[in-house]
Amino acid sequence: MMVRRRFIGSTALLGIAGIFGFAKRPIEKPLLHHVFFWLKNPESEADKQKLIAGLKTLAAIPTIRHIHVGVLASTEKREVVDTSWDVSELMFFDDEAGQKVYQDHPLHLAFVKNCSHLWTKVLVYDSIDV
Amino acid sequence: MMVRRRFIGSTALLGIAGIFGFAKRPIEKPLLHHVFFWLKNPESEADKQKLIAGLKTLAAIPTIRHIHVGVLASTEKREVVDTSWDVSELMFFDDEAGQKVYQDHPLHLAFVKNCSHLWTKVLVYDSIDV
Repeated sequence: MMVRRRFIGSTALLGIAGIFGFAKRPIEKPLLHHVFFWLKNPESEADKQKLIAGLKTLAAIPTIRHIHVGVLASTEKREVVDTSWDVSELMFFDDEAGQKVYQDHPLHLAFVKNCSHLWTKVLVYDSIDV
Repeated sequence: MMVRRRFIGSTALLGIAGIFGFAKRPIEKPLLHHVFFWLKNPESEADKQKLIAGLKTLAAIPTIRHIHVGVLASTEKREVVDTSWDVSELMFFDDEAGQKVYQDHPLHLAFVKNCSHLWTKVLVYDSIDV
């Protein structure tokens, strides 16, 4: 009975973890790779959607632990807030090796090949948790 | 028996969720508030640690769903990577209202009062998931 109960507990737990997207182990000191893109045609909604779709294909790269593709939030416009960019991606990696695997991955190279004509500027911030 | 087993299952689940920091519900379209700081004395390890400690006090603000305090990662130096900053903070909020609560929160105001002498420049990126 004890064994069965534990089994049920674990199954429920994995199920819930899966639903929440937290099935993988948490990252101790993640590497955050945050990239901002300035579109060549910022008025073109089609170009923006193409870039967003391209960025979302990167999610299949196995060393990416979490990915967020974003656009400008409507927060208060203050002097310190850069609101000049168009699309962003934030990725979490376990470490620098994981980020290197991503840089060299065929899906990333295909994304650059297919989408780099859409942007005029890219800015990257790589940080590691302390 | 059935009731007791369910109760044990749920307790284990909440316990594990708590350990992993995933006790709260997942955010549908989070607002990401990423801030980069340039220190007045970038050579001063003491100043850097003071800023890091100050940023970590912000974690107690209830509308912050996740917080990451970071420093420069040792990723490959490429033209597109900005490596000129010293300390960063990334916060996840449910929405813009949550971010506004943080901006006006006494812990945030105390942080600015106690730590703003440490930096010369701050740059903020506010994005929302798409």
